[in-house]
Amino acid sequence: MSIEHLHPVPHLTTVLTGPLQQIERHLLDQQTGIESWFRSQWLTTPPPFYASVDLRNAGFKLAPVDTNLFPAGFNNLNPAFIPLCIQAVQSAIERVCPTANQILILPESHTRNMYYLESLATLQDILKKAGYEVRIGTLLTDITTPLEVKLPSDRKIVLEAIERKDNLISLPNFSPCMILLNNDLSGGKPEILEGLEQPVIPPLELGWSTRLKSNHFRQYSEVAGEFANLVDIDPWLIDPLFLQCGEINFMKREGEECLEKNVSSLLNAIQSKYDEYKLDRKPFVVVKADAGTYGMGVMMVHSASEIKGLNRQQRTKMAATKGGMTTTKVILQEGIYTFETWGSAQSVAEPVVYMIDHFVVGGFYRVHTRRSADENLNAPGMQFEPLAFAETCITPELNMAPDANPNRFYAYGVIARLALLAAAREKAELL
Amino acid sequence: MSIEHLHPVPHLTTVLTGPLQQIERHLLDQQTGIESWFRSQWLTTPPPFYASVDLRNAGFKLAPVDTNLFPAGFNNLNPAFIPLCIQAVQSAIERVCPTANQILILPESHTRNMYYLESLATLQDILKKAGYEVRIGTLLTDITTPLEVKLPSDRKIVLEAIERKDNLISLPNFSPCMILLNNDLSGGKPEILEGLEQPVIPPLELGWSTRLKSNHFRQYSEVAGEFANLVDIDPWLIDPLFLQCGEINFMKREGEECLEKNVSSLLNAIQSKYDEYKLDRKPFVVVKADAGTYGMGVMMVHSASEIKGLNRQQRTKMAATKGGMTTTKVILQEGIYTFETWGSAQSVAEPVVYMIDHFVVGGFYRVHTRRSADENLNAPGMQFEPLAFAETCITPELNMAPDANPNRFYAYGVIARLALLAAAREKAELL
Repeated sequence: MSIEHLHPVPHLTTVLTGPLQQIERHLLDQQTGIESWFRSQWLTTPPPFYASVDLRNAGFKLAPVDTNLFPAGFNNLNPAFIPLCIQAVQSAIERVCPTANQILILPESHTRNMYYLESLATLQDILKKAGYEVRIGTLLTDITTPLEVKLPSDRKIVLEAIERKDNLISLPNFSPCMILLNNDLSGGKPEILEGLEQPVIPPLELGWSTRLKSNHFRQYSEVAGEFANLVDIDPWLIDPLFLQCGEINFMKREGEECLEKNVSSLLNAIQSKYDEYKLDRKPFVVVKADAGTYGMGVMMVHSASEIKGLNRQQRTKMAATKGGMTTTKVILQEGIYTFETWGSAQSVAEPVVYMIDHFVVGGFYRVHTRRSADENLNAPGMQFEPLAFAETCITPELNMAPDANPNRFYAYGVIARLALLAAAREKAELL
Repeated sequence: MSIEHLHPVPHLTTVLTGPLQQIERHLLDQQTGIESWFRSQWLTTPPPFYASVDLRNAGFKLAPVDTNLFPAGFNNLNPAFIPLCIQAVQSAIERVCPTANQILILPESHTRNMYYLESLATLQDILKKAGYEVRIGTLLTDITTPLEVKLPSDRKIVLEAIERKDNLISLPNFSPCMILLNNDLSGGKPEILEGLEQPVIPPLELGWSTRLKSNHFRQYSEVAGEFANLVDIDPWLIDPLFLQCGEINFMKREGEECLEKNVSSLLNAIQSKYDEYKLDRKPFVVVKADAGTYGMGVMMVHSASEIKGLNRQQRTKMAATKGGMTTTKVILQEGIYTFETWGSAQSVAEPVVYMIDHFVVGGFYRVHTRRSADENLNAPGMQFEPLAFAETCITPELNMAPDANPNRFYAYGVIARLALLAAAREKAELL
């Protein structure tokens, strides 16, 4: 067993005397007020069924960069904390569908992505342990007989063809009272799921065919502003700056001027915050497809001139996202350095926090040895090692240092819930 | 580290080929149906805020023998599963008092019982981590200034005098929106708590001044009957037989004949079940004060003649329970052997299961080296070693043996929830 396994919590490479310690100190001191504020928020705006939030921890800043409302990666969570997921699922289903007994999961249309299928098996197991009968359907029309897939973990899952009769979806001998969507609908809303009598949770409107990252971060900015006011910190410390452009066509080089101009404004805005905090770092901007996911259609830009200099290959890469959708809108987001590293190899580590209903149920780090602090660790073909959180995110210890492990994880859970609240407001707006 | 610490789960000394394996097998096979049944029960009859249930595992029979609605012993739970308590408390308070921010705990009037005060400190910590401001009052009128008590665990708690103004209870600078009762009211309902505007949770009616064990076990018998029907087992396998008598006065030897007669009937009834299952054990009966607690006013009887032969000391012991209340009613309950032992010393081990709202959050074993399988391990002055459950009670593993640890713990959680449901029905009847 290597020393890394004995201390399975990444450490910050920056010295924690600056703003992050300030954030963690504030969160800890005002824990009761924060929790009370969250409670009142969930009463007004109920959370989506589940979510995972990618965070970036720059030491001087801790903020979400992506909020996934159809999370995968459940298999990366610490097995010791699966009971928290089970209990949270029970609470969530009691709230959204109290009479549910049979649940149909509708997953992504992957049949060979073992990482995804392992997550799906864990999700099914959590729901079963929570006391539901659970089967897995598929939107792939070429699966007509049940497809059994053996997984590397020695588990197996079965994907079954769904049938629609009137306004109900069923499987043979299975009439689910609730459909749990684990498909982000990048390819659009499937007709077979429209106008169903059964509740589809989360609703179709939360898929990437209607959702926009820019909407999410607009909501997040408002949430972060209210929260920063509550705990008396500069909202920038938890909120990535962003800008948008109108229609973009990377192949035809349409909309490039706006992109260039906005990259430049954003870099300036970041630089002036860096100056304010005396941070000796080079600002960078992340350009992302506004409706994109899976880390596709993403690029890092350090100067406006890089936009003009995009070669054909780079433009092709930006033009299409998952499911072959064309990128017509992008969001320009402040890049946030990752200053958490893990192990003797100083691998970059980025936290992903999981929530079911409004409960923070765990998380893991994406650990990568071959990327640097300003690169995207969630990119196609990207290899990361998942490192499960060693502790839960819900046991703040007021008598320990603000950056002690339980308090670091608590801070992650607070910031992730701010993103969850932004998603809850998005949902309220969309429905 | 001794071998016991490496295998911290007691084992059954009986060979598991008989009825218990049958019970565990049935529970496992019908897990979804069981959970669905519980869900519909909680919708009809909401559970009390919290409870601990003492179980006895005789190998051939698994049943509750006591249900405490003001549980202590939170400090005996596995620290690894405290997050489950935190999350369950959040769910529970959202349901019973969604706007609560400040919570006043009203504990037992013990100021020197360190076991109890350690439990109280853990309970306060759970509520604080759940995001509430929590202070501890006292019903002791001689405490006029805050009493700080240092605990063996190096924590401290502060007991404060409560003040009633109109129909509100407060502490200085503290106006709790909810009062969490952790006092079983053996001494009667305190006048200061009657007719309050604030919710008192659990309600005063669930204290031992109104509650009767015989009511609980009458409700439990009904619940066990319905459940046994659902999972197709003999209800006796999970239900202790019991009988009652009218008014009893141990000192004046009034009511002794009924007691003698009923002990005899009960022993015969147990014997005929033992015969049915070919169990070569001697039946015994437990006589308990009907409104008693803390294991006071309890005796074990192996024949009716023992009742006639009670000496003055034994009668005095039965006549009074906690808080100096006189025993006027008793319940005669089938004694259930404890066939779980722990460690090389073969210490008797009895499970206690904890629930918050309808969530099973953990438990521990009372382990005692100097008692035998047919003695009460929860008696005054009794020394036990708490052994926290090594796993949670909510992860049944269908592909493991029915008596594998996760499934043993799941079975505990199911039977304990049956007792919780009986308490929920008691509560519905009392309010």
